[in-house]
Amino acid sequence: MSDAFKVALAGLGTVGGGVVKLLLEQKDVLKKRCGWPIELAAVADLNPDRARALGVPETTAFYTDAREMVEKTDADVVIELIGGADGIAYDLCRSALGRGKSFVTANKAMIAHHGNELARLAEERGVFFGYEAAVAGGIPIIKSLREGLVGNRISEIYGILNGTCNYILTVMRETGRPFGDVLADAQKLGYAEADPSFDIDGIDTAHKTCILGALAFGMPVDLAALSVEGIRSVADTDIDFAEELGFRIKLLGVGRRCDGGVSLNVYPCMIPQTAEIAHVDGVFNAVVVEGDFIGHTMFVGRGAGERPTASAVVADIADAAMHRGLPLLNVANKEVRPVAIVPLSERVGEYYVRFEVDDRPGVVADIARVLGVNGVSIASMIQRGRRPDGTVPLIMTFHRSKESAVTAALSEIERLPCVSGKPCMIRIERL
Amino acid sequence: MSDAFKVALAGLGTVGGGVVKLLLEQKDVLKKRCGWPIELAAVADLNPDRARALGVPETTAFYTDAREMVEKTDADVVIELIGGADGIAYDLCRSALGRGKSFVTANKAMIAHHGNELARLAEERGVFFGYEAAVAGGIPIIKSLREGLVGNRISEIYGILNGTCNYILTVMRETGRPFGDVLADAQKLGYAEADPSFDIDGIDTAHKTCILGALAFGMPVDLAALSVEGIRSVADTDIDFAEELGFRIKLLGVGRRCDGGVSLNVYPCMIPQTAEIAHVDGVFNAVVVEGDFIGHTMFVGRGAGERPTASAVVADIADAAMHRGLPLLNVANKEVRPVAIVPLSERVGEYYVRFEVDDRPGVVADIARVLGVNGVSIASMIQRGRRPDGTVPLIMTFHRSKESAVTAALSEIERLPCVSGKPCMIRIERL
Repeated sequence: MSDAFKVALAGLGTVGGGVVKLLLEQKDVLKKRCGWPIELAAVADLNPDRARALGVPETTAFYTDAREMVEKTDADVVIELIGGADGIAYDLCRSALGRGKSFVTANKAMIAHHGNELARLAEERGVFFGYEAAVAGGIPIIKSLREGLVGNRISEIYGILNGTCNYILTVMRETGRPFGDVLADAQKLGYAEADPSFDIDGIDTAHKTCILGALAFGMPVDLAALSVEGIRSVADTDIDFAEELGFRIKLLGVGRRCDGGVSLNVYPCMIPQTAEIAHVDGVFNAVVVEGDFIGHTMFVGRGAGERPTASAVVADIADAAMHRGLPLLNVANKEVRPVAIVPLSERVGEYYVRFEVDDRPGVVADIARVLGVNGVSIASMIQRGRRPDGTVPLIMTFHRSKESAVTAALSEIERLPCVSGKPCMIRIERL
Repeated sequence: MSDAFKVALAGLGTVGGGVVKLLLEQKDVLKKRCGWPIELAAVADLNPDRARALGVPETTAFYTDAREMVEKTDADVVIELIGGADGIAYDLCRSALGRGKSFVTANKAMIAHHGNELARLAEERGVFFGYEAAVAGGIPIIKSLREGLVGNRISEIYGILNGTCNYILTVMRETGRPFGDVLADAQKLGYAEADPSFDIDGIDTAHKTCILGALAFGMPVDLAALSVEGIRSVADTDIDFAEELGFRIKLLGVGRRCDGGVSLNVYPCMIPQTAEIAHVDGVFNAVVVEGDFIGHTMFVGRGAGERPTASAVVADIADAAMHRGLPLLNVANKEVRPVAIVPLSERVGEYYVRFEVDDRPGVVADIARVLGVNGVSIASMIQRGRRPDGTVPLIMTFHRSKESAVTAALSEIERLPCVSGKPCMIRIERL
């Protein structure tokens, strides 16, 4: 082995390109901080032009077949930046671990789907496995959770984990424009994909939330445990009323210890404007951790993009180079404990609901009666303005109630003749 | 050596008590996460009752003389939680390092005053030296800066680093009460010391700022490099005007790369209400780091107190137990480079100034003339309300100007007959 730590990098897309730039630009700084040089020994990409465009040194081996690179390279660590839960990324990962190579990835989908298996494989082979970039981009949240907060039992972890959604919600609030328009603009600007479903339907947030949940609660990675709602149904009207009621709407991944186990969910929610996280806007991400010793703590930063994600990938490379590995799920696999998942229907909390109702006497009484029968108590109410079709939005917030009671009441109210369409319900989180 | 990692702890005050509680309460969790048990092998305190009250196990050796403990113990790591830049803390530290023992401390004063010497000593002896708890309490900022952001050149690092000051400024804003009253209450509540100078005059913030500066900029710890202003001169009037102008007043430690070197300073400043850090209130701390890859990132949490500080100390103990040491100043001592310190007089930025002036025509013209001669340009002005003595507050903000020009103008204006007392100047930071 030469006296450099050798890196083999698969995938020269946005993030891969950022990692190459970082390793080249900060070569001297990294050598000083890590104690030995980090050398880009090999890269793989379907497109050979990308390596040239990035200025990859002549001495770096180039492969168009990433699998071949992993088989042939003598690198100390394999970096997978191709993406996707399965397919080539997953193959590379198993191949690298099988060869006893350290492995670093930004692939949240793969960890969310195969984290438990990969944890076993990494432990069997005794190799370093880094995935700092998989959650919240540049924010060192995995490290903070596993190392900085090592002495804490975590009661709650939640965050703004998808920059696309946060950008859309921020622009909707700032401009008053509806979801569809803002999404279309975000697509033009490159902040949202042509097929935006992965982001706006909360799937990306769910991947990250189940990873955070595993680390925070010592449980296996369990994507199926999550209820997932995205932001498609958040109307500009709701954003306006949220402001008026002293809230902001954010898409959060929320993990919480509660009676009977752990709840892990993704949903848009209203949070008080006085909460710091309410002011995390645009493409920024934030993660809040509540620990029994540290108390409340929050981490904010860019959750995506070439350079912030590269920052996180290189933090893992430095850890690998300095032999600072930890088990993938923080503790040895035999210490990972399944926990009971408390479904969202058991949530006890406050709620915001918007009904579209006929503008005539008796409507509020009808709705209030159904709520009362279901044990749901009204905390506040706003009614104002009439739509061209004669309906008006009727806004209510409910005191702390069980979600199953709220759901039952809403499905009954939906059938009242004075109510048009499905009531829009947004959970309130007093963070 | 037994199959436990042995800890010897000096000082059972607030933080020491917290560490004992954490090690006892989270024994099982720590064993799982660290891979082997953390054992409280010895404690030292002048008062033997404290150990008993904390439930320190019978098997733990007890000393009233911490120096004796360090000499006799077979512990793997010595934890110093006595405090003070010199005296016993400093003795213990040198004694532990001299004996080749790992060392952990929460002592920012000692690092600020002796960090460079201790870095040499730790490197010579090849021992672990942890001081996560020295800056921003529970927030894992030292780890994040050195490890999570390892791939970044830091251009700027600033933070709310003193909970006492942030608490006082928050209460002043929320209640409209003057500094002296709020300080007196904070003292009664235990949020401020009987002698509050260390906190409110910015000294504590300066200790932390020079540590962050060293880590961010690869420079030696250099407390003398800092200009330090505290919050004594922040009037309730200024807090009101700040709100009106869209700002919040926070005491910040600010480190910045700038033309000609690095500036490191502590001062109260006005920051836009739209900045996330403006919403970090009460006893909370926050640190913002700007890196060339990660971009803007912020860390928020409790900056002091038994439990949050214990969380940080135990993170260091876990790092020591898992052999995750780094050089005290992040890089080997030969790589630490002195940098030119750019004095505060070279600052180019915006300014808020409150003059107390006679309420008569021509006053603004007189002041504006002096500002113009000095090349300082007025951005906004507020004049309103007359005091019983016939003076009125005249508020001005200045466009970006060099501080030396502002200072020159203000000292000239102070001598104008229409101006009473010293103008109050607060820097504006567009964060």
